[in-house]
Amino acid sequence: MEIEIATIGGYEEVGRQMTAVRAGDNVVIFDMGLNLSKVLIHDNVETERMHSLDLIDMGAIPDDRVMSDIEGDVQAIVPTHGHLDHIGAISKLAHRYNAPIVATPFTIELVKQEIESEEKFGVENDLVKMDPGGTMAIGDDCELEFVNVTHSVIDAINPVLHTPEGAVVYGLDKRMDHNPVIGDPIDMDRFREIGRDGVLCYIEDCTNAGRKGKTPSESVARSQLKDVMYSLEDYDGGIVATTFSSHIARVKSLVEFADDIGRQPVLLGRSMEKYSGTAERLDFIDFPSDLGMYGHRKSVDRTFKRIMNEGKEDYLPVVTGHQGEPRAMLTRMARGETPYELDQGDKVIFSARVIPEPTNEGQRYQAEKLLGMQGARIYDDIHVSGHLSTEGHYQMLEALQPENVIPAHQSMEGYSPYVDLVTGEGYRLGDDLHVTQNGNIIQLTE
Amino acid sequence: MEIEIATIGGYEEVGRQMTAVRAGDNVVIFDMGLNLSKVLIHDNVETERMHSLDLIDMGAIPDDRVMSDIEGDVQAIVPTHGHLDHIGAISKLAHRYNAPIVATPFTIELVKQEIESEEKFGVENDLVKMDPGGTMAIGDDCELEFVNVTHSVIDAINPVLHTPEGAVVYGLDKRMDHNPVIGDPIDMDRFREIGRDGVLCYIEDCTNAGRKGKTPSESVARSQLKDVMYSLEDYDGGIVATTFSSHIARVKSLVEFADDIGRQPVLLGRSMEKYSGTAERLDFIDFPSDLGMYGHRKSVDRTFKRIMNEGKEDYLPVVTGHQGEPRAMLTRMARGETPYELDQGDKVIFSARVIPEPTNEGQRYQAEKLLGMQGARIYDDIHVSGHLSTEGHYQMLEALQPENVIPAHQSMEGYSPYVDLVTGEGYRLGDDLHVTQNGNIIQLTE
Amino acid sequence: MEIEIATIGGYEEVGRQMTAVRAGDNVVIFDMGLNLSKVLIHDNVETERMHSLDLIDMGAIPDDRVMSDIEGDVQAIVPTHGHLDHIGAISKLAHRYNAPIVATPFTIELVKQEIESEEKFGVENDLVKMDPGGTMAIGDDCELEFVNVTHSVIDAINPVLHTPEGAVVYGLDKRMDHNPVIGDPIDMDRFREIGRDGVLCYIEDCTNAGRKGKTPSESVARSQLKDVMYSLEDYDGGIVATTFSSHIARVKSLVEFADDIGRQPVLLGRSMEKYSGTAERLDFIDFPSDLGMYGHRKSVDRTFKRIMNEGKEDYLPVVTGHQGEPRAMLTRMARGETPYELDQGDKVIFSARVIPEPTNEGQRYQAEKLLGMQGARIYDDIHVSGHLSTEGHYQMLEALQPENVIPAHQSMEGYSPYVDLVTGEGYRLGDDLHVTQNGNIIQLTE
Amino acid sequence: MEIEIATIGGYEEVGRQMTAVRAGDNVVIFDMGLNLSKVLIHDNVETERMHSLDLIDMGAIPDDRVMSDIEGDVQAIVPTHGHLDHIGAISKLAHRYNAPIVATPFTIELVKQEIESEEKFGVENDLVKMDPGGTMAIGDDCELEFVNVTHSVIDAINPVLHTPEGAVVYGLDKRMDHNPVIGDPIDMDRFREIGRDGVLCYIEDCTNAGRKGKTPSESVARSQLKDVMYSLEDYDGGIVATTFSSHIARVKSLVEFADDIGRQPVLLGRSMEKYSGTAERLDFIDFPSDLGMYGHRKSVDRTFKRIMNEGKEDYLPVVTGHQGEPRAMLTRMARGETPYELDQGDKVIFSARVIPEPTNEGQRYQAEKLLGMQGARIYDDIHVSGHLSTEGHYQMLEALQPENVIPAHQSMEGYSPYVDLVTGEGYRLGDDLHVTQNGNIIQLTE
Repeated sequence: MEIEIATIGGYEEVGRQMTAVRAGDNVVIFDMGLNLSKVLIHDNVETERMHSLDLIDMGAIPDDRVMSDIEGDVQAIVPTHGHLDHIGAISKLAHRYNAPIVATPFTIELVKQEIESEEKFGVENDLVKMDPGGTMAIGDDCELEFVNVTHSVIDAINPVLHTPEGAVVYGLDKRMDHNPVIGDPIDMDRFREIGRDGVLCYIEDCTNAGRKGKTPSESVARSQLKDVMYSLEDYDGGIVATTFSSHIARVKSLVEFADDIGRQPVLLGRSMEKYSGTAERLDFIDFPSDLGMYGHRKSVDRTFKRIMNEGKEDYLPVVTGHQGEPRAMLTRMARGETPYELDQGDKVIFSARVIPEPTNEGQRYQAEKLLGMQGARIYDDIHVSGHLSTEGHYQMLEALQPENVIPAHQSMEGYSPYVDLVTGEGYRLGDDLHVTQNGNIIQLTE
Repeated sequence: MEIEIATIGGYEEVGRQMTAVRAGDNVVIFDMGLNLSKVLIHDNVETERMHSLDLIDMGAIPDDRVMSDIEGDVQAIVPTHGHLDHIGAISKLAHRYNAPIVATPFTIELVKQEIESEEKFGVENDLVKMDPGGTMAIGDDCELEFVNVTHSVIDAINPVLHTPEGAVVYGLDKRMDHNPVIGDPIDMDRFREIGRDGVLCYIEDCTNAGRKGKTPSESVARSQLKDVMYSLEDYDGGIVATTFSSHIARVKSLVEFADDIGRQPVLLGRSMEKYSGTAERLDFIDFPSDLGMYGHRKSVDRTFKRIMNEGKEDYLPVVTGHQGEPRAMLTRMARGETPYELDQGDKVIFSARVIPEPTNEGQRYQAEKLLGMQGARIYDDIHVSGHLSTEGHYQMLEALQPENVIPAHQSMEGYSPYVDLVTGEGYRLGDDLHVTQNGNIIQLTE
Repeated sequence: MEIEIATIGGYEEVGRQMTAVRAGDNVVIFDMGLNLSKVLIHDNVETERMHSLDLIDMGAIPDDRVMSDIEGDVQAIVPTHGHLDHIGAISKLAHRYNAPIVATPFTIELVKQEIESEEKFGVENDLVKMDPGGTMAIGDDCELEFVNVTHSVIDAINPVLHTPEGAVVYGLDKRMDHNPVIGDPIDMDRFREIGRDGVLCYIEDCTNAGRKGKTPSESVARSQLKDVMYSLEDYDGGIVATTFSSHIARVKSLVEFADDIGRQPVLLGRSMEKYSGTAERLDFIDFPSDLGMYGHRKSVDRTFKRIMNEGKEDYLPVVTGHQGEPRAMLTRMARGETPYELDQGDKVIFSARVIPEPTNEGQRYQAEKLLGMQGARIYDDIHVSGHLSTEGHYQMLEALQPENVIPAHQSMEGYSPYVDLVTGEGYRLGDDLHVTQNGNIIQLTE
Repeated sequence: MEIEIATIGGYEEVGRQMTAVRAGDNVVIFDMGLNLSKVLIHDNVETERMHSLDLIDMGAIPDDRVMSDIEGDVQAIVPTHGHLDHIGAISKLAHRYNAPIVATPFTIELVKQEIESEEKFGVENDLVKMDPGGTMAIGDDCELEFVNVTHSVIDAINPVLHTPEGAVVYGLDKRMDHNPVIGDPIDMDRFREIGRDGVLCYIEDCTNAGRKGKTPSESVARSQLKDVMYSLEDYDGGIVATTFSSHIARVKSLVEFADDIGRQPVLLGRSMEKYSGTAERLDFIDFPSDLGMYGHRKSVDRTFKRIMNEGKEDYLPVVTGHQGEPRAMLTRMARGETPYELDQGDKVIFSARVIPEPTNEGQRYQAEKLLGMQGARIYDDIHVSGHLSTEGHYQMLEALQPENVIPAHQSMEGYSPYVDLVTGEGYRLGDDLHVTQNGNIIQLTE
């Protein structure tokens, strides 16, 4: 059976992931993501109303025109988890394919919300929920399987397409976490079984391939966060925290430690409400029944007023804005645009890492400067990555023993440490190690 | 009463700490340390046989000639903890003063060993043990007190000289740790009491003053180390770990996690044996009764041979060499000079941070390269600092409310973030904030 | 005679320089500058209409309230050269003092323009021109002298106040340039004479004190620029250059090399027109008679249209925007907001260095990205600094042999390499080396 | 005709370059270099006596065993210039091939010296001199041509193999220099002609592909060096300079400027004598007749003694040791091991850049520290690179319009900016852009 991989997006960048796998007459698409930085570099672009082709020209969504060279029927569109670089282009591209969108429950819910906010296209593909561990037939000979993985968002999976020629494992966006605070550990046993049955191809996320050792478990970030928050138990002024809104495990730790040190947590900001609200509705987490979550600016400001009246020392606002985004809640606080007044000595906890890109670093710097001018003191980088480091990559190669390897989720520069690692394990460029770029088709079997 | 501070060493560098405080007729000396980097930059220097004046000329030990300008009698020499930059010059300088050496039990024991290995001078000062919390009269009007602090070595204290003009607090080398794995948390209650009674002067260690937030507790390093070591439970080859030999809390974690994952720990290298042996003898730690510690090269190599015979997969050697020091055990292993053979895929855990200095970085790089050429894979930077970050400095200032502040333990560049911090709290250069250099005398009261 | 130095602004930062020297009853003020970054961090602040006190609170202009502690009459306000961090607060503060503003002709002209654009205050101080080498009596016993120096703007001087106690040399903002493209070399002979007569105090700019060796001459930048521009002689598309508008020597080189490679130079952007127009009017430079300079957006856009019609290959637009400032000409070009269309392969020459501050770096990055999206290719960093490096500092100390040294024009971190250098020459902190901060008064003689 | 490229060495690293091109039955080998860093990481390795296979195992010389898969006769071994990473393995590998070594006169001379100092193998290949611009028949259908290029060593060429299928251009190690101080400018006219006739493949050096703009001409380094040296005209103490021994153009500038400022230059150190002596003997340069060059330690030390006797102020020693190599002359001076005594304020000019590798940086740092401890002051980085930056790469692609591109002379990480550049010009990975590694064979035509 002919097996081909189309590397549509995310093979020259982080963002706008999209890969198609053809096995005989059947095609499965993994991810349809957005590269947000390509949108933000322009002023006043509103993607909701834009046409796909314009977004493709901007480099914001995958250029899926290469799909016309793929001879087969798309049977499923499979977003692997709920981050925008994996689901953000579904509302712009999915309607072109007559196929259901298959994902885990939390991811499906986020896809649904994306589709609902889309103003240009009507996306009417079926939305099919499948749990980690679940399987689905693809044509007569193939099967799609979801293997549970651990990442910085809940309900993440690595999809596997089992074909008569071996498995194609789409390995993006995971950390080797045996103690992930929420959800099950990564299912390495299943990966090892799949490896024993034969893996034709492994597509791997190179994000942290240059970092030595092991990406720490979420439990390590939790331990560090606990150390910080407990040390503030006696502080009688304002404490504010921020983290990735979609990082439910981290939000859970913030909420619990707030309670431990005698503060009432409250989640503020549009995406804070969206992700945590969704996670709670779907029973991924059981927040305290009185936990406030507010997204609209008015209700947020009303909450800030209440906090100021009742005493900042009794609250922990968990807000958006960890990257210094100009319109996020924390940046508004830094500019003095909210009713919450920061005083000399108040604490701001960034449970996040600055994404290393100059525009971003400039914004974050400005936000911290403005916070500092209001007297706030910063705790930063209380965080662990969601991506495999060197040792995780070695363990995946040992588990899967793939015939072919395709690096992904990076630029050429990002690929390079992974290529070094993989060639060190005996793979060879131009043979079974495929360094590629957006828009290529790699034929694996004939 | 006249109070003067002589800033003898460690006010332009990290290393060779030495400060004298005169209160009326009585003088107390805090620390007599060695700046090892000034020795190592030369080839083949053996300090054991060198004269003080030559070592002073090299910048290796404090230039205590300024003591002749201090009119008073030295009543005590007080090394604050057992690191070389605080005790390493005692064997070269202490005999010049007719005063006892007063320190905590672990520190005294290390001082004793330093004196015993000295070949040039006979140091015969009395060695007096005083526990954290203990006090001692200095002349008629003053009192020396040891306040318990947490650092990367056990039994560390901050000495306080209580004078009629207020307390002089010598605040070097500590972390704000409420959960230090070994020993008691830092005694902030006592610092607050001292602050309420009036602090004339606070001498502060600026090492990490430029790092935002809180230095993580040793319990965070433990959590990260546990995450790494447990993830290696199934590995059936060699695992080697290295850390600061004097870091007993870390060694304890390594020993315990080794046991948890089914490996027998063994401590190898001269200083590994020295510090852990001392800690055990003094009952600071209760290692497993069968824990091997070997310092001499012959016994180390014999142990390596035994490990190779019985199976590397059953052992965890904890060795010296975390900075890539050319003659340390790990570097010898990297060069293939020991009977322990590294195989492809074996793990080397650096539970330490590279000290950021080019010579050092070059050596560590070379050691890692050589390890890599033998097939070893590196886990690095599993560590937390032993020094206060920004928030710890703020908390100390809030607790002590000192009249005068003297930054120490750094170069001018290292002082700068601390000066920014302290001026932000209202202190002023040229008034109550004293930025100084080696060899100055600061008169605080007349 | 009592000599005091008031360190009013620019002693914790680069920007808002202001220093007062009192000699007996007479006071001279050196510089009244603006810290632009403190303005730009806020959105939509227009300084023209703001009150001094608000600008002081923002940290944008010097807090001159310490002047009430100086007992003497201000005899002169002496801006040393035309950069905003030295003249930008004159329009907000000078009217408080009954004293003339004394400066070189080019600087006076720029001060005049500042005052004219001021909307809040009426500044009516006399404007007095004095050439480099000129002198002026200050009271009965003192004399003000201007020593010619070389910097990145023309007509820069170091003012010297000769007092009966020795000279006070205000040494900010210069490079040791013996071949400065425009104007005379730095007058080291005069500095050496002044040194022989006795220097009481030297106030020094620490900007580059950490850079080894010698700051290259402007002739080196010219040589590098020539190499780049001549290499583009055969290119038949668009070439655009940008540099500091006030850097007349650089503009001169750009204009001349444009001519050499067969392109007509044209200066575009408000401050390009302002500085080059002023320099030409005052006969500092003799530009080609047909050199176009356009500041208003309409005339700039008209010029761009003409260039597009007649052929980009015949022109070299020299534009504002070297730091990626959002509203500068080059950034508008990058956003496609001007009639000038960049094509694939067009060249953009940054004859400037990115000022190392995250907000700035973010903006410059964004501008370069947008230029790249239009096909432009970047030549950057064709520049030399205007400030002394290590060897220049040594040479000044050797020439002046000052009794006292005061580091300036930096934060504490910026001071540190200079303090290391000066202490290496035998000066001592707390004695004849005065590390200070904004708002202090240093008494030099009684 | 079948054309194949064997990427033997230098495709994962900088060093041990070796590439073979087969055109039908004939093979030409470009370069046989040494990776010195793989030797130096071990202690006490003497390559002169080592066997090829051991050096291959160490990664020090190319692993040419892949040549057994190439079916054709080697007609020429072509070292492109005299740097060790291009000629350093000839003495270990050339004897395996029955083919002459063809190179420019200066390169041939250096190859000859390499062969003479070899102790293990007898290399008896013919040595054939061919000037830049010269050609030589390779079999019946092909021709070898040398195109003149500019690099940091004289007499460098890019060899071109003209085949019936188009030219194969081996483009390593050059800068786009139109004003190179010694020798002719790069022959871009010839490259453009070759491009018009059709280029099958271009093998390109990626060293500086990530640097924006144009690598400055040697004339810019000369201008900077002149600025520094002229500024020292009045200094009456010692001045010492160091640079790459093989960089004859730089040595020429040092010698000339020494004379200009009234100092007698003298070249000291084994490789200083070797390269400059060879260049003079071959009439590449006409040094002053009394210029001393000394290589043996005894004659060097005798010269130092003479300088000390006659007065340091009259000499400019130009010595080896720009990277802080432990056994080079400057490092010996830094350690006080030579008769030349450095005094406070003496100058050391590094007309070289630190090669960015930690071992190296550590050694250079140590050398500078030791020089500083003797009172010397450092001028560093007076240098320009010998390799193309971004614009040079664009110009080569425009000139040659190659059908295929093969990045070389770097690791994967070093390739990445070049791959970005080339894909931006329309080449595609897996099609006409070949990212490869050591030991591959790329078939270009069938």
